[in-house]
Amino acid sequence: MDGEFKVTPWEVSGDIDYDLLVEKFGTKRIDQALLDRMAKYGELHPLLKRGVVYSQRDMEWVLDRYDAGERFYLYTGRGPSGHTHLGHLMPWMFTKYLQDTFRAPLYFQLTDDEKFLFNDNLTLKDTRDMAYQNLLDVIALGFDPKITKIMIDTEYIHHLYPLALQVAKRITFSTAKAVFGFDNSTNIGSIFYTSIQAAPCFIGSELAGKNAPCLIPCGIDQDPHFRVTRDIAPVLGYYKPALLHNKMFPGLQGTDKMSSSQPNSTIYTTDPPKLVRKKIMSAFTGGAVSVEEQRKTGGKPEVCSVYKYKFYLFEKDDKALADLYDRCKKGEILCGECKKTLADSIVTFIEDHQVKREAAKDKVEEFMLRD
Amino acid sequence: MDGEFKVTPWEVSGDIDYDLLVEKFGTKRIDQALLDRMAKYGELHPLLKRGVVYSQRDMEWVLDRYDAGERFYLYTGRGPSGHTHLGHLMPWMFTKYLQDTFRAPLYFQLTDDEKFLFNDNLTLKDTRDMAYQNLLDVIALGFDPKITKIMIDTEYIHHLYPLALQVAKRITFSTAKAVFGFDNSTNIGSIFYTSIQAAPCFIGSELAGKNAPCLIPCGIDQDPHFRVTRDIAPVLGYYKPALLHNKMFPGLQGTDKMSSSQPNSTIYTTDPPKLVRKKIMSAFTGGAVSVEEQRKTGGKPEVCSVYKYKFYLFEKDDKALADLYDRCKKGEILCGECKKTLADSIVTFIEDHQVKREAAKDKVEEFMLRD
Repeated sequence: MDGEFKVTPWEVSGDIDYDLLVEKFGTKRIDQALLDRMAKYGELHPLLKRGVVYSQRDMEWVLDRYDAGERFYLYTGRGPSGHTHLGHLMPWMFTKYLQDTFRAPLYFQLTDDEKFLFNDNLTLKDTRDMAYQNLLDVIALGFDPKITKIMIDTEYIHHLYPLALQVAKRITFSTAKAVFGFDNSTNIGSIFYTSIQAAPCFIGSELAGKNAPCLIPCGIDQDPHFRVTRDIAPVLGYYKPALLHNKMFPGLQGTDKMSSSQPNSTIYTTDPPKLVRKKIMSAFTGGAVSVEEQRKTGGKPEVCSVYKYKFYLFEKDDKALADLYDRCKKGEILCGECKKTLADSIVTFIEDHQVKREAAKDKVEEFMLRD
Repeated sequence: MDGEFKVTPWEVSGDIDYDLLVEKFGTKRIDQALLDRMAKYGELHPLLKRGVVYSQRDMEWVLDRYDAGERFYLYTGRGPSGHTHLGHLMPWMFTKYLQDTFRAPLYFQLTDDEKFLFNDNLTLKDTRDMAYQNLLDVIALGFDPKITKIMIDTEYIHHLYPLALQVAKRITFSTAKAVFGFDNSTNIGSIFYTSIQAAPCFIGSELAGKNAPCLIPCGIDQDPHFRVTRDIAPVLGYYKPALLHNKMFPGLQGTDKMSSSQPNSTIYTTDPPKLVRKKIMSAFTGGAVSVEEQRKTGGKPEVCSVYKYKFYLFEKDDKALADLYDRCKKGEILCGECKKTLADSIVTFIEDHQVKREAAKDKVEEFMLRD
């Protein structure tokens, strides 16, 4: 199965070759020059330093405009097909870093329409309800309500639809087929949908009444939507949206993406702390079959999901992370200990998040984009 | 060209064989039994008697439900690509007869999105502006504001979109291709659009909170949209919409459909009376090359657009119409006289309509479907 993988907005599977994706999608790797430049605006986010946010489109241009005094806005989102898990939180946390660093307004889209159209088993009520569940997690992360606006597609459609029409008129079925892999059996709502995901790229400009740069932090799997949008933007008189792409957050069972379809591989923000701990204690590691063996040969942090969790989110100290790597390789630390420290970190995080998530219920209206 | 014609929601051309359409679309001819039954609810409309409204789906069922005490609502609409002409007014006048006869609520849809998506030369602003122009003509016809609600797609999209999604999820590109003749070069907005035209079939049921029969009076060219909608309705738990189809209103130059692309063939409700008269005086008739010739051989009312106008709308008296036909055939009446009486009728109608159209400007809000 080596080398076989699939990355589309609706399916991520296999061993992802992220370098190949950059080539295939025609994006640009984030290089040292860009990292050095970004470090000037504030301390670099660990996800940038560690190459989890690793690919981009037009980020230099966004910074040029910013330096020239032109404020950009952020746009990201979520397809509400189920409860929020850590894999969703990661890019949102990164988005918050961008908001804090650049004082950038954020438009956050919840695509209840998409998840309804693309999932046979979900009703529109399911995805709408889940959109409300998910936005609590967004709010809980501490975005600034003065410059953060959340939209649920079916509730904000009167603003999105006219923009979506402008986009849709310029995309042929040929293009949609080539980019998204649609065929004759695809439903006509799914075919149209990319226009709705494109619309918020321009909503900041529309509401401001003047053209404003838009920066989209998102998973690399979402790039196809914006590749198409970028082709059309100039025709519509808008700037092309810029992007920062992150790799997929790993699953607890050693797979490349934390996925809702494997509950044990996934930590939901709504999981009781006990369950969180249980899931981590049964995570896939790079450990050997026995303690003796591991003391002798060492672990394999490069394939270990516990190590990956620390690398992605839960060990911000670079030195501590490097130490852990070395000690694991040398067999100085066993998987049990390592799982326990990760479980402690995540449980602490989740308990705090759940308090904030509860408090978010009173703040929903403050964050919703209405009129 | 005999026998070559095309009838789709976006193109009507050639010599239309209306009998063949019934067969091709799988509709039912309105037969004498149905006419007799409809006559019991009130005097038959001339368009029914004369076979202009000639085809149907499930009309007997609508009357069965009505007889059982279940009220149906009406749904029709207009694609606002230009000013309203007589060809548009005809089915609306018929719709008013249905409203008056059955006290049926009417939902009237203005598809500004459709006309934008299907016309390269129209902006969304163009079609939205034209929607407002067109709805003045609807109001001017005297519909009851208490039971008549007008919706412009882009303004009422927050109610239409969730219904459209339900429809869109159940239509594959295969089906859309087969029914509407789409191909790889069709834009993805056009592909999705039929879902938006389907949505009002269910809006009456949605707003009432219970299933209600829907009857759509419309041109036979619009049937494909509703053929698809009817297939899906039961899956969504709604009644299949019923239909009454009219033939196309003829052009003044002898063609089968009054078309905005031939301005001289078309009488707009906004035309100054002088221009209306001029257009009619230069209409295509079945007349001979000279007065002498016509006195001798007679005219050809069966191909004469002046006769057709009287037949379709402007001579309601069956006996007077039959007389005219006979006298024309015998060469007793010349085209000039005939044009003059038609011009008098239409100018009288248009002058009156324009006064009501002006007054309609103050009634717009009363008719708009909002919230």
